[in-house]
Amino acid sequence: MTAIRATNITWHEGHVGREERGGLLGQKGATLWFTGLSGSGKSTIAFTLEHALVQRGRLAYVLDGDNVRHGLNKNLGFSAADREENIRRIGEVAKLFAAAGLVVMTSFISPYRRDRDAVRALHAAAGLPFIEVHVATPIATCETRDPKGLYKKARAGELKNFTGIDDPYEPPLHPELAIDATGTSPQEAAALLLQYLEKRGMIKASP
Amino acid sequence: MTAIRATNITWHEGHVGREERGGLLGQKGATLWFTGLSGSGKSTIAFTLEHALVQRGRLAYVLDGDNVRHGLNKNLGFSAADREENIRRIGEVAKLFAAAGLVVMTSFISPYRRDRDAVRALHAAAGLPFIEVHVATPIATCETRDPKGLYKKARAGELKNFTGIDDPYEPPLHPELAIDATGTSPQEAAALLLQYLEKRGMIKASP
Repeated sequence: MTAIRATNITWHEGHVGREERGGLLGQKGATLWFTGLSGSGKSTIAFTLEHALVQRGRLAYVLDGDNVRHGLNKNLGFSAADREENIRRIGEVAKLFAAAGLVVMTSFISPYRRDRDAVRALHAAAGLPFIEVHVATPIATCETRDPKGLYKKARAGELKNFTGIDDPYEPPLHPELAIDATGTSPQEAAALLLQYLEKRGMIKASP
Repeated sequence: MTAIRATNITWHEGHVGREERGGLLGQKGATLWFTGLSGSGKSTIAFTLEHALVQRGRLAYVLDGDNVRHGLNKNLGFSAADREENIRRIGEVAKLFAAAGLVVMTSFISPYRRDRDAVRALHAAAGLPFIEVHVATPIATCETRDPKGLYKKARAGELKNFTGIDDPYEPPLHPELAIDATGTSPQEAAALLLQYLEKRGMIKASP
């Protein structure tokens, strides 16, 4: 049995090519980098899109605080250097996922332009698409929602260096997409992103 | 168009379930952790298996020195602490790939039992399969092959702390699989691993 199967297997020293991976999944590997304030709707849009893509037979995965901050980046704090390293590592992991053929979405505030641009450059050097999605929900809306009660704590001074309150958020100058979730539901945002990916040939159009 | 599509999309706050991912790919996410001396054949077996899996419609990806040491782990050296952190990060990234539904293979010497066991524990806690593959090619064979000329340099004292020469290799006590590549070709090794994955229901049997 083993001997028979082995005749179908050829010796390789390197990765399966991107074309072959793409054919398997009907998609090209790509990173969708969501950036925006706490409470802007990044994660809900990303998870809604993850489900929509998998339902269409495409493979997608969200990297977020839950699966990264408590794992890969659990040895990082919130100093300037650690914040930069946090985004650098997430960018490197996203690149690996995109190289493996997945549509990977990252959902982190990622407030600094320089850090995001470094991740963009990393993808460009590897010939992998980097799609910056600015979830541009105004702070007033985010603060009204305040799903985790963080703005309240930040206003009370219990949380320091909170983005948008006492730490800056640098919006992207040329994001591939900008979505204000005040007037756009997660479903509508996910549909826009699906269309974007289809139009650019990154995912095969759903039947 | 957007409006019509959006009606097919439902709001989600968390990941697509493992069952649904598994159905899409005909596989369960799992980590195959290759460990063994330099020149033992880890990478060739891993890449050969990567190709064999993708040819069968399964999705696999190899993490190795080329895509990790120069990327995610480029800020790590070779001190004891950095070697441990190197394996820890690789273990965390493998876990993310397995959670996304891929068969991920890691090809690193990973000489220390404690570091490998920590990665095993990480996977166990997440309910993800960790398959330790000891590529148990004897050092004499590895040194005869010496594909990168590293043993020669280590014997000449030009490379310090070289595993198997002046740094220890701790073989796994209970690896899921052990393969001596002296008498087993990469094709045969990949066929054995395919059988292993099929028998345990981690990948759907090829037609």
